[in-house]
Amino acid sequence: MKKLINDPNNVVVEALKGMEKAHGDILKINFEPAYITRKSPTKKGKVAIISGGGSGHEPMHGGYVGFGMLDAACPGAVFTSPTPDQMEEATKAVDGGAGVIHLVKNYTGDVMNFQMAADNCADEGIKVEAIIIDDDVAVKDSLYTAGRRGVGATVLTEKIIGASAERGDDLATVISYAKYCKDNGRSMGMALTSCILPAVGKPIFEIGDDEIEMGVGIHGEPGRERMKLKPANELVDMMLDPVLSDISLKNGDEIILMLNGMGGTPLIELYLLFNRAVETAQKKGIKTVRCLVGNYITSLEMQGFSITVLKANSEILKLWDAPVHTAGLRWGI
Amino acid sequence: MKKLINDPNNVVVEALKGMEKAHGDILKINFEPAYITRKSPTKKGKVAIISGGGSGHEPMHGGYVGFGMLDAACPGAVFTSPTPDQMEEATKAVDGGAGVIHLVKNYTGDVMNFQMAADNCADEGIKVEAIIIDDDVAVKDSLYTAGRRGVGATVLTEKIIGASAERGDDLATVISYAKYCKDNGRSMGMALTSCILPAVGKPIFEIGDDEIEMGVGIHGEPGRERMKLKPANELVDMMLDPVLSDISLKNGDEIILMLNGMGGTPLIELYLLFNRAVETAQKKGIKTVRCLVGNYITSLEMQGFSITVLKANSEILKLWDAPVHTAGLRWGI
Repeated sequence: MKKLINDPNNVVVEALKGMEKAHGDILKINFEPAYITRKSPTKKGKVAIISGGGSGHEPMHGGYVGFGMLDAACPGAVFTSPTPDQMEEATKAVDGGAGVIHLVKNYTGDVMNFQMAADNCADEGIKVEAIIIDDDVAVKDSLYTAGRRGVGATVLTEKIIGASAERGDDLATVISYAKYCKDNGRSMGMALTSCILPAVGKPIFEIGDDEIEMGVGIHGEPGRERMKLKPANELVDMMLDPVLSDISLKNGDEIILMLNGMGGTPLIELYLLFNRAVETAQKKGIKTVRCLVGNYITSLEMQGFSITVLKANSEILKLWDAPVHTAGLRWGI
Repeated sequence: MKKLINDPNNVVVEALKGMEKAHGDILKINFEPAYITRKSPTKKGKVAIISGGGSGHEPMHGGYVGFGMLDAACPGAVFTSPTPDQMEEATKAVDGGAGVIHLVKNYTGDVMNFQMAADNCADEGIKVEAIIIDDDVAVKDSLYTAGRRGVGATVLTEKIIGASAERGDDLATVISYAKYCKDNGRSMGMALTSCILPAVGKPIFEIGDDEIEMGVGIHGEPGRERMKLKPANELVDMMLDPVLSDISLKNGDEIILMLNGMGGTPLIELYLLFNRAVETAQKKGIKTVRCLVGNYITSLEMQGFSITVLKANSEILKLWDAPVHTAGLRWGI
């Protein structure tokens, strides 16, 4: 195993310490249990938003804590759900009295543990609502997941509802945007290579020198098909078509498009892939009006990419364009 | 070769098209010859700054074109110097009448081609000054380079002098900051793995499953030593010590520290490495007052990292904190 670590058991804690040193102007970290909050406490009356999940997908989610996005994030062990006490303590820490939203990616462990935390918080009088993101069109039911997996649309949802909460929208309004994103965001990914969990020390799946996993999950879960590598343009089209058709996008629609690297893919390739994605959407009359190109939801050093599309409208674009100041996304501030 | 490309000969052009689609609000691209400029023409009387070099190091340099940083960038073929006509046309395109700075990384081809372009521009009455960045302390003389290689300090220099030019400083002043960065910025890198050039199709160097290249160059040039993989903390200290001592940093000094991924290293590992780098500097009484942690100057999908240190002072920090709006760096705007 070739990794830039000290002790496999300390990777997450040492990385969190590094995050705190790098972004101490934005966030602070609680270590027992582990959760990341903004540096400043939640304003009274603001809806708070929490996400979380296994580590190894950085910058998600800790990199999205800050003004205009999340109030807290709960990092689990690498590729492992955080424990209920993490979400419970984080929820109590950021509750501003206007309700707390748990934004959950659809994995059985995450859903169950967030639910336990929500129940405990409800017992103490905190109003918690959960939104479960399940945007991955590749497969229905998967390793670790009943139903579709939650992937890239989570990042876009965090931005949209983060802006809504920041401007002072009430819980019902913020939840309505979360539901919009859940209903109108779709993704699909693929992998050229596997990745190695620090605590395991060998690749999480085997793949041939000329093979790819089409529809891969962010934990290396099997996708639709193991196939031979194809030219980039063909791969983009194979992934974009099911994504666009699943939300019935039609001629004249506008989208926010995220071309996301899995962690080990060079940026030069991501731009090349993005070029094709925009052209293919355009041929169907669908216009890419905002985008992200880079590593936003990763799988350690895995090579590959994913495409996420969120149908846009003027209100969604207003929320997208609102100022954000996090380690992973920043503009307007 | 497992790459997300179509035709090895079209990688740079297709990626540039993707960049233009993604960042059309910031930049525009000229294809024959290839150079990237800001969307808006240079204001009359503003010093213009151009950098360039082989592609494959994204986001450098095209990702640093925009308000508060570069006026233009010239992308060569992958790991290949741009040609003199690229720099010449870019220089003419962004000349605002107050002088043009060529910020050049110290590789023989880059230096020679930028010089030819500068000579041609001088013949046409454009005032060009070149600054050659040679910050890599790993080796003296290397493959492709007479003298030390130019690496990560280039990114920090682009930010510092970009801010100086943006606020209206004259050529001599902007050059003085460039010289400051050249004199007070140092770097060192290491690699766990090699990378594959699209046009070559096999790794540019061989490396064992338990080996690293300490002091590697951004084109995979040999470093100081081929050695067995060590714990991350030891690696950081082995690299930071020569960097800090080369600019004679002492107790009480402040630094800007960039912990840079080579392209294929997960962000979780970069934060872990950064944590150690800050602690090790602190033990010597050196305080990290600003930082970048992420992929800023890469070598395609290479796994590894580099550390760059720039000695700070109040004026340098003022320039660092000034607003910047590029694809690769953005704040305050």
